[in-house]
Amino acid sequence: MHRTVFSLLVDNTSGVLSRIAGMFSRRGYNIDSLTVGVTADPKYSRMTVVVNGDAQIIEQIEKQLRKQEDVIEIKVLMGGKSVCRELILLKIRAQAKDRQDIATISDIFRAKIVDVGEDSMVMELTGSQDKLDAFISLLADYEILELARTGLTGLSRGSDDVTYLE
Amino acid sequence: MHRTVFSLLVDNTSGVLSRIAGMFSRRGYNIDSLTVGVTADPKYSRMTVVVNGDAQIIEQIEKQLRKQEDVIEIKVLMGGKSVCRELILLKIRAQAKDRQDIATISDIFRAKIVDVGEDSMVMELTGSQDKLDAFISLLADYEILELARTGLTGLSRGSDDVTYLE
Repeated sequence: MHRTVFSLLVDNTSGVLSRIAGMFSRRGYNIDSLTVGVTADPKYSRMTVVVNGDAQIIEQIEKQLRKQEDVIEIKVLMGGKSVCRELILLKIRAQAKDRQDIATISDIFRAKIVDVGEDSMVMELTGSQDKLDAFISLLADYEILELARTGLTGLSRGSDDVTYLE
Repeated sequence: MHRTVFSLLVDNTSGVLSRIAGMFSRRGYNIDSLTVGVTADPKYSRMTVVVNGDAQIIEQIEKQLRKQEDVIEIKVLMGGKSVCRELILLKIRAQAKDRQDIATISDIFRAKIVDVGEDSMVMELTGSQDKLDAFISLLADYEILELARTGLTGLSRGSDDVTYLE
Protein backbone atom coordinates (compact mmCIF):
# COMPACT_ATOMS: atom_id res chain seq x y z
CA MET A 1 0.00 0.00 0.00
CA HIS A 2 1.35 3.39 -0.90
CA ARG A 3 -0.03 6.80 -1.84
CA THR A 4 -0.28 7.65 -5.53
CA VAL A 5 -1.06 11.17 -6.75
CA PHE A 6 -2.92 11.33 -10.07
CA SER A 7 -3.03 14.68 -11.85
CA LEU A 8 -5.82 14.66 -14.44
CA LEU A 9 -6.70 17.19 -17.09
CA VAL A 10 -10.48 16.91 -17.59
CA ASP A 11 -13.24 18.67 -19.49
CA ASN A 12 -14.77 21.47 -17.42
CA THR A 13 -18.33 20.16 -17.62
CA SER A 14 -20.96 20.15 -14.89
CA GLY A 15 -21.07 16.40 -14.29
CA VAL A 16 -17.36 15.57 -14.46
CA LEU A 17 -16.75 15.63 -10.71
CA SER A 18 -19.67 13.34 -9.90
CA ARG A 19 -18.78 10.94 -12.75
CA ILE A 20 -15.17 10.54 -11.64
CA ALA A 21 -15.96 10.44 -7.91
CA GLY A 22 -18.67 7.89 -8.74
CA MET A 23 -16.24 5.67 -10.63
CA PHE A 24 -13.91 5.59 -7.61
CA SER A 25 -16.69 4.91 -5.12
CA ARG A 26 -18.51 2.24 -7.21
CA ARG A 27 -15.31 0.27 -7.53
CA GLY A 28 -14.42 0.70 -3.87
CA TYR A 29 -11.14 2.53 -4.46
CA ASN A 30 -9.92 4.31 -1.38
CA ILE A 31 -9.54 8.06 -2.16
CA ASP A 32 -7.41 10.04 0.29
CA SER A 33 -8.38 13.35 -1.27
CA LEU A 34 -9.70 14.87 -4.49
CA THR A 35 -9.43 18.49 -5.56
CA VAL A 36 -10.59 20.11 -8.76
CA GLY A 37 -10.23 23.60 -10.20
CA VAL A 38 -10.54 25.29 -13.55
CA THR A 39 -7.26 25.84 -15.49
CA ALA A 40 -6.09 29.01 -17.26
CA ASP A 41 -8.19 27.76 -20.19
CA PRO A 42 -11.80 27.61 -18.88
CA LYS A 43 -12.57 24.64 -21.15
CA TYR A 44 -10.52 22.40 -18.86
CA SER A 45 -10.16 21.62 -15.16
CA ARG A 46 -7.25 20.01 -13.36
CA MET A 47 -8.22 17.28 -10.90
CA THR A 48 -5.77 15.89 -8.34
CA VAL A 49 -6.71 12.53 -6.81
CA VAL A 50 -4.69 10.86 -4.05
CA VAL A 51 -5.28 7.12 -3.81
CA ASN A 52 -4.07 4.40 -1.47
CA GLY A 53 -3.39 1.04 -3.02
CA ASP A 54 -0.85 -1.48 -4.28
CA ALA A 55 0.61 -1.45 -7.79
CA GLN A 56 -2.19 -3.65 -9.16
CA ILE A 57 -4.93 -1.32 -7.94
CA ILE A 58 -3.14 1.75 -9.29
CA GLU A 59 -2.91 0.05 -12.69
CA GLN A 60 -6.64 -0.76 -12.59
CA ILE A 61 -7.49 2.83 -11.71
CA GLU A 62 -5.37 4.14 -14.58
CA LYS A 63 -7.20 1.78 -16.95
CA GLN A 64 -10.59 2.97 -15.67
CA LEU A 65 -9.57 6.63 -15.97
CA ARG A 66 -8.52 6.08 -19.59
CA LYS A 67 -12.06 4.90 -20.36
CA GLN A 68 -13.62 8.14 -19.05
CA GLU A 69 -14.54 10.44 -21.92
CA ASP A 70 -13.98 13.56 -19.81
CA VAL A 71 -10.37 12.65 -19.01
CA ILE A 72 -7.93 14.23 -21.46
CA GLU A 73 -4.61 13.54 -19.79
CA ILE A 74 -3.42 11.35 -16.91
CA LYS A 75 -0.15 11.96 -15.05
CA VAL A 76 1.20 10.33 -11.91
CA LEU A 77 3.09 12.90 -9.82
CA MET A 78 6.32 11.45 -8.41
CA GLY A 79 7.87 12.66 -5.14
CA GLY A 80 11.08 14.38 -6.24
CA LYS A 81 9.77 15.47 -9.62
CA SER A 82 6.68 17.29 -8.45
CA VAL A 83 5.40 19.91 -6.01
CA CYS A 84 2.37 18.90 -3.93
CA ARG A 85 0.65 21.20 -1.47
CA GLU A 86 -2.43 21.32 0.71
CA LEU A 87 -4.06 24.17 2.63
CA ILE A 88 -5.65 23.83 6.05
CA LEU A 89 -7.58 26.21 8.28
CA LEU A 90 -7.48 25.23 11.93
CA LYS A 91 -9.60 26.80 14.67
CA ILE A 92 -8.48 26.09 18.23
CA ARG A 93 -9.70 27.17 21.64
CA ALA A 94 -7.28 29.78 22.95
CA GLN A 95 -7.54 32.25 25.80
CA ALA A 96 -5.49 35.47 25.88
CA LYS A 97 -2.75 33.73 27.90
CA ASP A 98 -2.30 31.04 25.19
CA ARG A 99 -1.81 33.44 22.28
CA GLN A 100 1.97 33.87 22.60
CA ASP A 101 2.63 30.12 22.64
CA ILE A 102 0.39 29.56 19.63
CA ALA A 103 1.99 32.48 17.78
CA THR A 104 5.43 30.93 18.38
CA ILE A 105 4.38 27.52 17.02
CA SER A 106 2.72 29.24 14.05
CA ASP A 107 5.91 31.20 13.33
CA ILE A 108 8.02 28.05 13.24
CA PHE A 109 5.68 26.51 10.65
CA ARG A 110 5.15 29.82 8.84
CA ALA A 111 1.44 29.48 9.51
CA LYS A 112 -0.59 32.69 9.28
CA ILE A 113 -2.91 33.68 12.11
CA VAL A 114 -6.02 34.79 10.23
CA ASP A 115 -8.48 35.33 13.09
CA VAL A 116 -8.24 35.99 16.80
CA GLY A 117 -11.43 35.85 18.87
CA GLU A 118 -12.07 36.15 22.58
CA ASP A 119 -11.51 32.44 23.13
CA SER A 120 -10.43 31.11 19.73
CA MET A 121 -7.81 31.53 17.00
CA VAL A 122 -7.78 30.48 13.34
CA MET A 123 -4.52 29.61 11.58
CA GLU A 124 -3.85 29.06 7.88
CA LEU A 125 -1.06 26.72 6.84
CA THR A 126 0.09 25.25 3.54
CA GLY A 127 2.55 22.46 2.91
CA SER A 128 3.00 18.78 2.35
CA GLN A 129 0.78 16.38 4.28
CA ASP A 130 3.64 15.55 6.70
CA LYS A 131 4.15 19.20 7.60
CA LEU A 132 0.43 19.75 8.19
CA ASP A 133 0.24 16.66 10.40
CA ALA A 134 3.27 17.78 12.43
CA PHE A 135 1.68 21.21 12.98
CA ILE A 136 -1.61 19.70 14.14
CA SER A 137 0.13 17.31 16.56
CA LEU A 138 2.26 20.12 18.02
CA LEU A 139 -0.99 21.90 18.91
CA ALA A 140 -2.38 18.78 20.62
CA ASP A 141 -2.49 20.59 23.97
CA TYR A 142 -5.20 22.85 22.62
CA GLU A 143 -8.73 21.82 21.80
CA ILE A 144 -9.36 21.77 18.05
CA LEU A 145 -12.73 23.40 17.45
CA GLU A 146 -12.84 23.11 13.66
CA LEU A 147 -10.56 21.94 10.88
CA ALA A 148 -11.02 22.51 7.15
CA ARG A 149 -8.57 21.14 4.59
CA THR A 150 -8.60 21.47 0.83
CA GLY A 151 -6.97 18.16 -0.08
CA LEU A 152 -3.76 17.91 -2.08
CA THR A 153 -3.05 19.67 -5.35
CA GLY A 154 0.15 19.38 -7.34
CA LEU A 155 2.18 20.06 -10.47
CA SER A 156 5.21 18.37 -11.97
CA ARG A 157 8.49 20.30 -11.81
CA GLY A 158 10.06 21.75 -14.97
CA SER A 159 8.45 22.08 -18.38
CA ASP A 160 9.29 18.75 -20.04
CA ASP A 161 5.93 17.08 -19.70
CA VAL A 162 3.62 20.05 -20.28
CA THR A 163 0.80 19.17 -22.67
CA TYR A 164 -0.15 21.61 -25.38
CA LEU A 165 -3.77 21.23 -26.28
CA GLU A 166 -3.83 23.51 -29.31
CA MET B 1 -26.82 35.63 -9.02
CA HIS B 2 -24.27 35.62 -6.26
CA ARG B 3 -21.76 33.22 -4.77
CA THR B 4 -22.76 31.27 -1.69
CA VAL B 5 -20.27 29.24 0.34
CA PHE B 6 -21.73 26.17 2.06
CA SER B 7 -19.65 24.55 4.81
CA LEU B 8 -20.92 21.03 5.45
CA LEU B 9 -19.98 18.55 8.12
CA VAL B 10 -20.49 15.10 6.58
CA ASP B 11 -19.87 11.47 7.47
CA ASN B 12 -16.43 10.35 6.31
CA THR B 13 -17.69 7.44 4.19
CA SER B 14 -16.38 6.29 0.83
CA GLY B 15 -19.39 7.32 -1.27
CA VAL B 16 -20.19 10.69 0.28
CA LEU B 17 -18.31 12.80 -2.28
CA SER B 18 -19.95 11.11 -5.24
CA ARG B 19 -23.43 11.26 -3.64
CA ILE B 20 -23.23 14.98 -2.94
CA ALA B 21 -21.51 15.88 -6.23
CA GLY B 22 -24.15 13.74 -7.96
CA MET B 23 -27.01 15.60 -6.28
CA PHE B 24 -25.61 18.93 -7.50
CA SER B 25 -25.02 17.70 -11.05
CA ARG B 26 -28.36 15.85 -11.45
CA ARG B 27 -30.24 18.98 -10.48
CA GLY B 28 -28.12 21.20 -12.70
CA TYR B 29 -26.78 23.39 -9.89
CA ASN B 30 -23.72 25.34 -10.93
CA ILE B 31 -20.82 24.47 -8.56
CA ASP B 32 -17.89 26.91 -8.59
CA SER B 33 -15.75 24.62 -6.46
CA LEU B 34 -15.97 21.76 -3.99
CA THR B 35 -13.30 20.69 -1.51
CA VAL B 36 -13.44 17.96 1.09
CA GLY B 37 -11.07 16.85 3.82
CA VAL B 38 -11.20 14.78 6.97
CA THR B 39 -11.64 16.72 10.25
CA ALA B 40 -9.72 16.26 13.52
CA ASP B 41 -12.24 13.48 14.24
CA PRO B 42 -11.73 10.91 11.45
CA LYS B 43 -15.44 9.96 11.57
CA TYR B 44 -16.29 13.26 9.85
CA SER B 45 -15.20 15.30 6.85
CA ARG B 46 -15.71 18.98 6.18
CA MET B 47 -16.94 19.80 2.68
CA THR B 48 -16.91 23.34 1.30
CA VAL B 49 -19.12 23.94 -1.74
CA VAL B 50 -19.24 27.26 -3.61
CA VAL B 51 -22.42 27.72 -5.63
CA ASN B 52 -23.66 30.41 -8.00
CA GLY B 53 -27.36 31.14 -7.89
CA ASP B 54 -30.16 33.42 -6.77
CA ALA B 55 -31.84 33.22 -3.35
CA GLN B 56 -34.43 30.71 -4.56
CA ILE B 57 -31.80 28.29 -5.85
CA ILE B 58 -29.75 28.57 -2.66
CA GLU B 59 -32.86 27.74 -0.65
CA GLN B 60 -33.55 24.69 -2.85
CA ILE B 61 -29.98 23.49 -2.42
CA GLU B 62 -30.21 23.82 1.34
CA LYS B 63 -33.42 21.78 1.31
CA GLN B 64 -31.77 19.06 -0.79
CA LEU B 65 -28.71 19.00 1.46
CA ARG B 66 -30.93 18.51 4.51
CA LYS B 67 -32.34 15.35 2.89
CA GLN B 68 -28.88 13.79 2.50
CA GLU B 69 -28.26 11.23 5.23
CA ASP B 70 -24.50 11.88 5.20
CA VAL B 71 -24.91 15.60 5.94
CA ILE B 72 -24.70 16.34 9.66
CA GLU B 73 -24.48 20.12 9.68
CA ILE B 74 -25.00 22.89 7.13
CA LYS B 75 -23.56 26.38 7.50
CA VAL B 76 -23.47 29.27 5.06
CA LEU B 77 -20.20 31.19 5.43
CA MET B 78 -20.77 34.97 5.29
CA GLY B 79 -18.14 37.42 4.04
CA GLY B 80 -17.15 39.36 7.15
CA LYS B 81 -17.84 36.53 9.57
CA SER B 82 -15.68 33.88 7.95
CA VAL B 83 -12.22 33.18 6.56
CA CYS B 84 -12.13 31.62 3.08
CA ARG B 85 -8.93 30.61 1.33
CA GLU B 86 -7.79 28.81 -1.78
CA LEU B 87 -4.36 27.53 -2.83
CA ILE B 88 -3.01 27.65 -6.38
CA LEU B 89 0.12 26.32 -8.02
CA LEU B 90 1.02 28.17 -11.20
CA LYS B 91 3.71 27.10 -13.67
CA ILE B 92 4.80 29.76 -16.16
CA ARG B 93 7.36 29.85 -18.93
CA ALA B 94 10.31 31.91 -17.69
CA GLN B 95 13.86 32.29 -18.96
CA ALA B 96 16.71 33.35 -16.69
CA LYS B 97 16.19 37.03 -17.67
CA ASP B 98 12.54 36.92 -16.48
CA ARG B 99 13.24 35.58 -12.99
CA GLN B 100 13.78 38.91 -11.25
CA ASP B 101 10.52 40.39 -12.54
CA ILE B 102 8.58 37.28 -11.52
CA ALA B 103 10.24 37.23 -8.09
CA THR B 104 9.18 40.87 -7.57
CA ILE B 105 5.54 40.18 -8.47
CA SER B 106 5.62 37.07 -6.24
CA ASP B 107 7.00 39.11 -3.33
CA ILE B 108 4.20 41.66 -3.58
CA PHE B 109 1.60 38.88 -3.36
CA ARG B 110 3.62 36.87 -0.83
CA ALA B 111 3.63 33.99 -3.28
CA LYS B 112 6.34 31.37 -2.72
CA ILE B 113 8.55 30.29 -5.60
CA VAL B 114 8.61 26.51 -5.18
CA ASP B 115 10.44 25.42 -8.35
CA VAL B 116 12.82 27.04 -10.81
CA GLY B 117 13.65 25.14 -13.99
CA GLU B 118 15.69 26.06 -17.04
CA ASP B 119 12.70 27.66 -18.74
CA SER B 120 9.92 27.48 -16.15
CA MET B 121 8.99 28.53 -12.62
CA VAL B 122 6.31 27.27 -10.23
CA MET B 123 4.72 29.61 -7.67
CA GLU B 124 2.45 28.76 -4.73
CA LEU B 125 -0.10 31.33 -3.57
CA THR B 126 -2.97 31.28 -1.10
CA GLY B 127 -5.71 33.82 -0.62
CA SER B 128 -9.20 34.86 -1.52
CA GLN B 129 -10.39 34.27 -5.07
CA ASP B 130 -9.94 38.00 -5.90
CA LYS B 131 -6.30 37.98 -4.82
CA LEU B 132 -5.55 34.84 -6.83
CA ASP B 133 -7.21 36.30 -9.93
CA ALA B 134 -5.23 39.55 -9.55
CA PHE B 135 -1.97 37.60 -9.30
CA ILE B 136 -2.75 35.55 -12.41
CA SER B 137 -3.68 38.63 -14.43
CA LEU B 138 -0.50 40.46 -13.36
CA LEU B 139 1.47 37.57 -14.84
CA ALA B 140 -0.45 37.80 -18.13
CA ASP B 141 2.75 38.69 -20.03
CA TYR B 142 4.07 35.21 -19.33
CA GLU B 143 2.77 32.02 -20.83
CA ILE B 144 0.91 29.91 -18.26
CA LEU B 145 2.04 26.32 -18.75
CA GLU B 146 -0.03 24.71 -16.01
CA LEU B 147 -2.37 25.81 -13.25
CA ALA B 148 -3.67 23.70 -10.36
CA ARG B 149 -6.11 25.09 -7.79
CA THR B 150 -7.63 23.41 -4.78
CA GLY B 151 -10.96 25.23 -4.68
CA LEU B 152 -12.12 27.26 -1.70
CA THR B 153 -12.14 26.09 1.90
CA GLY B 154 -13.34 28.13 4.85
CA LEU B 155 -14.25 28.44 8.52
CA SER B 156 -16.43 30.87 10.42
CA ARG B 157 -14.64 33.37 12.69
CA GLY B 158 -14.89 33.08 16.47
CA SER B 159 -16.24 30.16 18.45
CA ASP B 160 -19.96 31.01 18.74
CA ASP B 161 -21.27 28.58 16.16
CA VAL B 162 -18.97 25.64 16.73
CA THR B 163 -20.89 22.37 16.84
CA TYR B 164 -20.06 19.84 19.50
CA LEU B 165 -20.85 16.36 18.33
CA GLU B 166 -20.32 14.48 21.55
